[in-house]
Amino acid sequence: MKASQYLIATQKETPADAEVISHQLMLKAGMIRKVAAGLYTWLPLGLRVLRKVEAIVRDEMEKAGAQEVLMPGIQPAELWQESGRWSNFGDELLRLKDRHQREFCVGPTHEEVITDHMRNELHSYKQLPANFFQIQTKFRDERRPRFGVMRAREFLMKDAYSFHVDQQSLDDTYDIMYQAYSAIFDRLSLRYRAVQADSGSIGGSASHEFHVLADSGEDDIVFSSGSEYAANIEKAEALAVGPEGELCTDAFTGHIDSSGMPAAESVSTPGVSSIDEVSKLLNVSPSATVKTLLVEGAEGGLVALCLRGDHSLNAVKAEKLDEVLTPLTMADEAVIEKAIGCKPGSIGPQSLKAKGIPLIVDRSAAVIPLFTAGANEEGRHCTNLNWKRDVGEDFTVADIRNVVSGDPSPDGKGTLDIKRGIEVGHIFKLGDKYSQAMNASVLNENGKKVVMTMGCYGIGVSRIVAAAIEQNHDEAGIIWPEALAPFTIVLIPLNYQKSEPVRTFSDDLYSQLRARGYDVLLDDRNERPGVKFADAELLGIPHRVTIGDRGLAENEIEYRQRNDTENRSIAVDNALNFLQTALAHPKTGERLIVDDAAAEGQSK
Amino acid sequence: MKASQYLIATQKETPADAEVISHQLMLKAGMIRKVAAGLYTWLPLGLRVLRKVEAIVRDEMEKAGAQEVLMPGIQPAELWQESGRWSNFGDELLRLKDRHQREFCVGPTHEEVITDHMRNELHSYKQLPANFFQIQTKFRDERRPRFGVMRAREFLMKDAYSFHVDQQSLDDTYDIMYQAYSAIFDRLSLRYRAVQADSGSIGGSASHEFHVLADSGEDDIVFSSGSEYAANIEKAEALAVGPEGELCTDAFTGHIDSSGMPAAESVSTPGVSSIDEVSKLLNVSPSATVKTLLVEGAEGGLVALCLRGDHSLNAVKAEKLDEVLTPLTMADEAVIEKAIGCKPGSIGPQSLKAKGIPLIVDRSAAVIPLFTAGANEEGRHCTNLNWKRDVGEDFTVADIRNVVSGDPSPDGKGTLDIKRGIEVGHIFKLGDKYSQAMNASVLNENGKKVVMTMGCYGIGVSRIVAAAIEQNHDEAGIIWPEALAPFTIVLIPLNYQKSEPVRTFSDDLYSQLRARGYDVLLDDRNERPGVKFADAELLGIPHRVTIGDRGLAENEIEYRQRNDTENRSIAVDNALNFLQTALAHPKTGERLIVDDAAAEGQSK
Repeated sequence: MKASQYLIATQKETPADAEVISHQLMLKAGMIRKVAAGLYTWLPLGLRVLRKVEAIVRDEMEKAGAQEVLMPGIQPAELWQESGRWSNFGDELLRLKDRHQREFCVGPTHEEVITDHMRNELHSYKQLPANFFQIQTKFRDERRPRFGVMRAREFLMKDAYSFHVDQQSLDDTYDIMYQAYSAIFDRLSLRYRAVQADSGSIGGSASHEFHVLADSGEDDIVFSSGSEYAANIEKAEALAVGPEGELCTDAFTGHIDSSGMPAAESVSTPGVSSIDEVSKLLNVSPSATVKTLLVEGAEGGLVALCLRGDHSLNAVKAEKLDEVLTPLTMADEAVIEKAIGCKPGSIGPQSLKAKGIPLIVDRSAAVIPLFTAGANEEGRHCTNLNWKRDVGEDFTVADIRNVVSGDPSPDGKGTLDIKRGIEVGHIFKLGDKYSQAMNASVLNENGKKVVMTMGCYGIGVSRIVAAAIEQNHDEAGIIWPEALAPFTIVLIPLNYQKSEPVRTFSDDLYSQLRARGYDVLLDDRNERPGVKFADAELLGIPHRVTIGDRGLAENEIEYRQRNDTENRSIAVDNALNFLQTALAHPKTGERLIVDDAAAEGQSK
Repeated sequence: MKASQYLIATQKETPADAEVISHQLMLKAGMIRKVAAGLYTWLPLGLRVLRKVEAIVRDEMEKAGAQEVLMPGIQPAELWQESGRWSNFGDELLRLKDRHQREFCVGPTHEEVITDHMRNELHSYKQLPANFFQIQTKFRDERRPRFGVMRAREFLMKDAYSFHVDQQSLDDTYDIMYQAYSAIFDRLSLRYRAVQADSGSIGGSASHEFHVLADSGEDDIVFSSGSEYAANIEKAEALAVGPEGELCTDAFTGHIDSSGMPAAESVSTPGVSSIDEVSKLLNVSPSATVKTLLVEGAEGGLVALCLRGDHSLNAVKAEKLDEVLTPLTMADEAVIEKAIGCKPGSIGPQSLKAKGIPLIVDRSAAVIPLFTAGANEEGRHCTNLNWKRDVGEDFTVADIRNVVSGDPSPDGKGTLDIKRGIEVGHIFKLGDKYSQAMNASVLNENGKKVVMTMGCYGIGVSRIVAAAIEQNHDEAGIIWPEALAPFTIVLIPLNYQKSEPVRTFSDDLYSQLRARGYDVLLDDRNERPGVKFADAELLGIPHRVTIGDRGLAENEIEYRQRNDTENRSIAVDNALNFLQTALAHPKTGERLIVDDAAAEGQSK
């Protein structure tokens, strides 16, 4: 591509409303433009990257035996009513009426549509397993769309849906998809991790998320130092630990005998409500305190959730408890004052049961022999509390906290570490959630009608572009892995308009590289060299060649990789050979390892 | 692809609600499935065809210098309010509100969005011309979606928008796009015609439609026998003609002197209202009658449109008249009776002016010396009417009729013929309609701010698939041109499950063809041969090879083209060579001409 005939829409200013670096760089590099909140146009340069991701995703899906389909973006309400999601999907489902006042939605996902098709098309176990994917535009009416295409309302997604006669077949296809996803992120050269995940509102029995690792990620993902265990923090199991993070067996949870221990004591703590303040005032470690959160109960009333003072509540885990209302809703301060007689900062687990408030105690809170907590009296706390003696044994012990760095791994091997990730893929064992609701069944080997078992598998195609930038950039701009780069190489001729030798050499090298299938950008614009270099770095083009009169006079051109800090002189005669070893192969993506000495030897 | 691992969703029954053959065949062949009125899912087999069309369109657009972008499907109301189309686009624009009650539409076209971007990105004539295209899902809320993907509500479209500093530059790009469209339809091997067209509601100064020729087409397109002239009937100019279709010069229109002619006479025609009935009863040729249609006026009241009895009104032409309300609205019968005193079937042009009804007379009606028309009295007609004598000279003569076969060509060369076409492409010179309304300007060579001139260029990608079938099918199914075929060749092994030689040979041929880049379907299903042959014909796969034990024993396989009626024996040793000459090249689409004698010579 010649830059003079291409929309290079770079900007110098960092856009004021772009919070994250990928959003800033995509705007500055002229990859995208905003049309409205959460709605973006992909300009030519950005679309080239998006299409490269799309092609790799499609290729690996096909290799994995999935068949491509294309379902409509607008979906009829009837199907969503059948699955039950029309009423319970929430405000992210953009509902609308057509000219005949019939109800539709702009599809955020396609479980209903594909299940409707496949209950008609699939009749026999002989047709199974079958796996269908599409690469299609989705819409989710986010309350607060942000971070550019990272959390847009309209976005490009690869979604796949598999159908099975039994669980074993689902497990097999799930593994195949897990491998296909790994192959995709390998080919994209991204640093990523697959982690166990919560299945959330999509439902189902098991799921994994694929995260691109980046400090700016919105998710905390958890790894074991001693095994392959990895999970989203929403899902990662927290064991009972002591003050130093050491594993405690559950056996004594909540039943630690108080013989010989000091008696509980109510102390005045005026104006003190946070765990930090209590710890300091009373000189106790936060790990020896218990905080009590009152939330709304599933059947009305309140429920108390008790955590060690230095731990944080895991809302996803709490929502799984029968007693707790979903979505998790903190009790109103006025309601708390009326029920308990004090503000939230002075609540403790004692005597709540007597008020009819069920008590759920986190595993690590339940193993503290003596702890400090609110006294259920304004401006007072209790020290030396013992669960058995001072609270009673009538409470539930559960895992309701987030793991912290240093926690023991739930598989018993090593300790946990936490990193930030951007979720770019999610695979689910759906089971029969949709096939049951929509009566999608086939005849099995015995001629018996069985409801199909399903899996579903998503990849955020447009989000991958932003995630790749979050992971790969510097102060000058984007640093594309070659598989994603809009152009693999940029040729920067100096004085192209006036110098005949520069123009001839540049045009010739451009043609030769193009003929070999490389994505080349020839920056033939009538701009200062500084502008061209800055744009090349901002756009993140992996390889750069500079062609000038002075170099050509000495039979040299200058080469630099986007990550390098210095140019390297390459002999003119050797230029094409050198570039063919330096650049990834345009079809296979493979690269010959550049022998620096050999290359240098051939340069002047 | 192996059929056993592919969704071959063929159906025997012709679907009751499919009116046209392409819709029937797309359903029967398992290419598409209906989700709701005008909303379809593309199943794997159909999507393969759609993607082939898409790839050819993209390739030719890029060759023509257009840059690909991707704009959102959901568009904010503000942009449409700026262009003025929010209020006047009509009910096909699906309007909706997001969770914050902000107004959006599901985009039926993207003039507003691209103009918004380009008024920000383009600043100088140096950046022009620039042409941007996308292949994107559109939505039009058709009142009566029908004919499957031919007139769906959601459909895949290639739309392109070009920006220019002046008319000459637009003309140049328009010509380039005209050539690119021709190249696309040539590559698709469709019989098509480019015709002059009316610009309609999109606006602009000139436009051409590209039609795939098919008897089932919804449009009448008009050709000259003596020149390149071709136009949509909406646009084709009708000259003044005499009773035999001979050209009449306009000079005498409406002014033919009545000296020596018989006087007008009112005759009783009880219960007679149609032209046919009047002609029979009074024994006059329909071409010597005039029918008068009363329509609503642009500023209220009625307007009379007079046509020769055997001609039909052209609504698009009528709507261009200042006097006539747009959209064209026939006057209510009650209103007519009140104004004239008779039913519509008895109206004539006489005395209408006196009632304040403007008179517009078609050119060919105005040249009839003596004509028969309604008497403006219930159950009566007038014969021997002369315009000058009996109507007066105070009327407008205009072209308001559809041309008919045999009319003289408006360019003076030859006569006109009419065929049916399916509109699959439309190119427009928009001029400054959108750039003016949205203030999209650049600095020209003299540093002066000028509003950009625009063109826009559409192709109905999904509609092409249906149009290709309308043009290419027989009673057994689809007959794909190779460029569109979901698979180029199908291998049909007989007794694949049990015969080791058949399986080995088939698998081997399959692998060899695939390795050479051909789209091969191996029908390894455990089905009767009859089922496989019928499916191969229904799916329209251009080449078919049958492999059986009996043939292999004699070192032969059977080959047949979809259009042939008989098999042809090919020597096993020569099979691969033969197929490589018979099939179009998988990359270039070129085909070696099969020398029948040579091929036969090598078969047994």
